[in-house]
Amino acid sequence: MFDLPKNLKKISLFLEQLPGIGEKTANRLALYMLRLPENVLLEFSQAIANLKSKTKLCRRCFNLTENDYCQICSDSSRDQTTIIVIEQVYDILSFEKGRIYHGLYHVLHGRIDPLNHIGPEDIKIAELLNRIKKESQIKEIILATNPNLEGEATAMFIKEKIEKNYPSIKISRIGYGLPIGASIEYADYMTLKKSLEGRMKY
Amino acid sequence: MFDLPKNLKKISLFLEQLPGIGEKTANRLALYMLRLPENVLLEFSQAIANLKSKTKLCRRCFNLTENDYCQICSDSSRDQTTIIVIEQVYDILSFEKGRIYHGLYHVLHGRIDPLNHIGPEDIKIAELLNRIKKESQIKEIILATNPNLEGEATAMFIKEKIEKNYPSIKISRIGYGLPIGASIEYADYMTLKKSLEGRMKY
Repeated sequence: MFDLPKNLKKISLFLEQLPGIGEKTANRLALYMLRLPENVLLEFSQAIANLKSKTKLCRRCFNLTENDYCQICSDSSRDQTTIIVIEQVYDILSFEKGRIYHGLYHVLHGRIDPLNHIGPEDIKIAELLNRIKKESQIKEIILATNPNLEGEATAMFIKEKIEKNYPSIKISRIGYGLPIGASIEYADYMTLKKSLEGRMKY
Repeated sequence: MFDLPKNLKKISLFLEQLPGIGEKTANRLALYMLRLPENVLLEFSQAIANLKSKTKLCRRCFNLTENDYCQICSDSSRDQTTIIVIEQVYDILSFEKGRIYHGLYHVLHGRIDPLNHIGPEDIKIAELLNRIKKESQIKEIILATNPNLEGEATAMFIKEKIEKNYPSIKISRIGYGLPIGASIEYADYMTLKKSLEGRMKY
């Protein structure tokens, strides 16, 4: 059976292993790349080759960085007393997009997930506790793990650890409820239950 | 505002210019690549760097190849008397997937599209006529440009050229009608009209 030429096929097969990209899309993207200017392709090739060696974890919050400390930790104008604890680097981009928060982060790089054999020691929880110990200016930890079984378990575990070791630190959990733009008609009852529990004076 | 580290961002920006990939998907894919093994990334980087230099057009049918002639033209077991004329390389993959056809192809690399200033001389029509002249064994040309305005205009133009210069060659156009699995309820009337015109004895 006919297939794409070898080098093009290699590119297509690489793209196919990325999440959400099937064989057809991979072929289409590879063929599209063929039309891009040589210098654009070479620059991309170089960036891919450097990806692992250039990208490191921030020594303080485990965000991605090319230096010792990430852009956020290096920014002394940010509020040093608050830390949002998140599961993955991507979540930082979501918070930062809205410019709604000016404190620091701590990336867990995962969540407690016993079914997949991921325990508390496999994610950056010890590092968080260590950080709280070292950084005496920290006043509040906002737990922003995802609102699902594993995220809740992770938040609960961290909450108990901090409460036990650092009782003066304020611990909060991001609010639950209806997302903006949603309609009650289509909301699931768990979300509605949470939105009632989390109701605020109006 | 916080953004991904420079090298990672470069990758994300490259991906974002590909069709169907937005900023969020590009970020997600770039972050996913970070988790792939170093050797996989290096091999991909190499393939990207080689893409333009390695990939050429087949000297006979203008399919993609790494040699002088493509895999299909090099396969002497294929029927050398029939040529399917298509707009783009991708269309070969569609025909070949089903193993429904064993003849040759001719890739136009475009279609006549006056609104976008693409005339007959901008696509491989002269090359097709030249090929028919040189390859005396050719008996049938199947026009498989897309069933839209530009594709029809292109097919019509080629048909007239061949009829005039090589009257003995059989020219056909791919059939129109309802795609398999479709329902008449949702079919547009142009397709239904074509499916009536193209009805076959049963």
